[in-house]
Amino acid sequence: MNYFLDLVPVTEAARVLQTCAPRLPGETVPLPAALGRILAAPVSAREDIPGFSRSVVDGYAVYAADTTGAGEAIPALLTITGRISMGEGSIPPLNRGECMYVPTGGVLPHGADAVAMIEYSEEMGRDVLVRRAVAQGENVTLSGDDFRAGVEVFETGRRLSPRDLGVLGGLGYDTVNVVRRPKVGIISTGNELVPVDQVPAPGEIRDVNTYLCHGYVMERGGDPEIFGIVPDEREALEEAISRAVESCDIVLISGGSSKGERDMCAAIIEEMGTVHIHGIALAPGKPTIIGTIGTTPVIGLPGHPASSYVVLIALVDELIGAMTRSGVHRNIRKATLRTNIASARGREDYVRVRLTGDEATPLFGKSGLTNTLIYSSGLVRVPESREGLETGEEVEVILW
Amino acid sequence: MNYFLDLVPVTEAARVLQTCAPRLPGETVPLPAALGRILAAPVSAREDIPGFSRSVVDGYAVYAADTTGAGEAIPALLTITGRISMGEGSIPPLNRGECMYVPTGGVLPHGADAVAMIEYSEEMGRDVLVRRAVAQGENVTLSGDDFRAGVEVFETGRRLSPRDLGVLGGLGYDTVNVVRRPKVGIISTGNELVPVDQVPAPGEIRDVNTYLCHGYVMERGGDPEIFGIVPDEREALEEAISRAVESCDIVLISGGSSKGERDMCAAIIEEMGTVHIHGIALAPGKPTIIGTIGTTPVIGLPGHPASSYVVLIALVDELIGAMTRSGVHRNIRKATLRTNIASARGREDYVRVRLTGDEATPLFGKSGLTNTLIYSSGLVRVPESREGLETGEEVEVILW
Repeated sequence: MNYFLDLVPVTEAARVLQTCAPRLPGETVPLPAALGRILAAPVSAREDIPGFSRSVVDGYAVYAADTTGAGEAIPALLTITGRISMGEGSIPPLNRGECMYVPTGGVLPHGADAVAMIEYSEEMGRDVLVRRAVAQGENVTLSGDDFRAGVEVFETGRRLSPRDLGVLGGLGYDTVNVVRRPKVGIISTGNELVPVDQVPAPGEIRDVNTYLCHGYVMERGGDPEIFGIVPDEREALEEAISRAVESCDIVLISGGSSKGERDMCAAIIEEMGTVHIHGIALAPGKPTIIGTIGTTPVIGLPGHPASSYVVLIALVDELIGAMTRSGVHRNIRKATLRTNIASARGREDYVRVRLTGDEATPLFGKSGLTNTLIYSSGLVRVPESREGLETGEEVEVILW
Repeated sequence: MNYFLDLVPVTEAARVLQTCAPRLPGETVPLPAALGRILAAPVSAREDIPGFSRSVVDGYAVYAADTTGAGEAIPALLTITGRISMGEGSIPPLNRGECMYVPTGGVLPHGADAVAMIEYSEEMGRDVLVRRAVAQGENVTLSGDDFRAGVEVFETGRRLSPRDLGVLGGLGYDTVNVVRRPKVGIISTGNELVPVDQVPAPGEIRDVNTYLCHGYVMERGGDPEIFGIVPDEREALEEAISRAVESCDIVLISGGSSKGERDMCAAIIEEMGTVHIHGIALAPGKPTIIGTIGTTPVIGLPGHPASSYVVLIALVDELIGAMTRSGVHRNIRKATLRTNIASARGREDYVRVRLTGDEATPLFGKSGLTNTLIYSSGLVRVPESREGLETGEEVEVILW
């Protein structure tokens, strides 16, 4: 494989990721556990919601026509024939000239087509004086006003919010068919890496990428599994990748910051499966590897944490979005660029920026430093058609 | 208590919530489990990160001064005295006129102050030709460049992102001191309510608020506990509130859509503790109750799900933000209003809107309907000083 001579455009890499993304099956979970999960099938209303016409105020259910012309001076006089309680269902029909007390949310008796608010009505023994005319449908919601029976309420691929869970409850779904969480294996390679609970000797650094990837996978609704730090030795790496591929839906291998290490990782994937792409016109993130072993996508991430994270956002998001049918949803904010960003035509750049009000300031740091990951608000993408972006330009910030 | 005669402004309600918000204690969790948790104490760098000066490219560690004037025509000639491997720490010092091969991330030998990239260098036996001059510090990061020992990296109250977990790993924290999750009890009241797995008879509706609140609490990093549907009977409600107060940090009681039910809930809280506020100049959300029983905040939410959710966002966010020290973080997007919104001076309104590009369209629905919760993108707040907002105005949308 010829290194970086023909770099693959990001759009092509995203397309390849989509074609090698196995669809995850659905599973049934209890409604409260469905928060943040992705629907594996559309959800429809099985009946009219609400199932009956009801009042939206405390007042008197009436025939609207009986109140025509009513006002302070000449109120409508109606005979009260009942009091409806909350949750009560079997109510006698209403006749012309009659009314019934109904609380907010109470059933409208058959015949009634409006509710006169209690604020504009007065009970006098068996009669009620209505001092303001109501129109047909006033202060009433009809059966099916919220959701009509049969209507598709949620599409496949929707990530369920708290509000969605409420509506699903209202529709009568106590369980939900959601996409199984992708199980994502995380391997960190590099002879310089030590576990986070160790003090690094000179030349050593702690393993940042395992925790970066673990958090990323959880945030994306996946189920991360840590395979630990693997030294840059062919046998050890082969063994770790085999184990990860066996139990996971995706394998992320970070590290191999030198050319030799990256080549070894690609060679192992090629031997066990296929390397589709090695080298992408993306900065940072050029040495990214996209492969499959069996049907399992295996992604080689750069060793530098900040570069790794850009690849997660720019590419792995596409993979997870395709596997879960949710697509990629980015939280974008528009901002004005405060300084120039240089780039190269033919390469997509992702620059960390800090947002202050509506202004985005690029944070340039030497590669290998991690502080820009926490001092920045998100990324600005420089498209491959551009040679850079200029001070004062309006840009879209992909918020972290 | 005199109903709605003197409604409390939202700002005052938020202040009261902050004063009755008990601070949650900290607890120690393993680093990977800290995603989305809130720091209970600041975190500082305990040593310089990185702990040594290193190369950011594959190349040759040099004295920059030895390359002065070097170019294609007249390269600098240096003697190669070693090859540094990744993770190797004990390296002999470099003398003038010498160089050592160093991979990306490798330790810089004592004396070296720059790295000549491999792309501009050529090995010839024991010598290296450097064809481009490097400046002092070029292609090098120094010890402490990422984080200086002793510097405060994260503040108390920070909600930890995947990037934060990576950096915490780099700083050597394999456990993190985070605020304990608030345990939030959820009670739904109303004789009209049936569990979600039942088909409602006429007059009945399914319990939406339990799932709405459950999802909300989880999304805010809390630990929800469902106490189920309680009929509007004093004894049953007293018993449920007692149990919830005993085991929870916050109790949310939704429902009581009629005046009588709301009064009963307030009377019970008053009997068991204190009602601080009953009735807020907020639409929807006017009948909200803010109380405490012992030191536990007890919030009475409106029965209508959409109104309930507005109160969660407008007020309960303040309570949780204060209890967890995280404050309230809203995802705001600016947009242009497409139609007028009417309001009343002296009242804060929260209107559901749908975002299409940069335009926000208010979704008006009869109260009691839930579909606007899923067809909207968020809320626009109409401040109490305004009588409404006008078409074409720039507004801030609080995204869901």
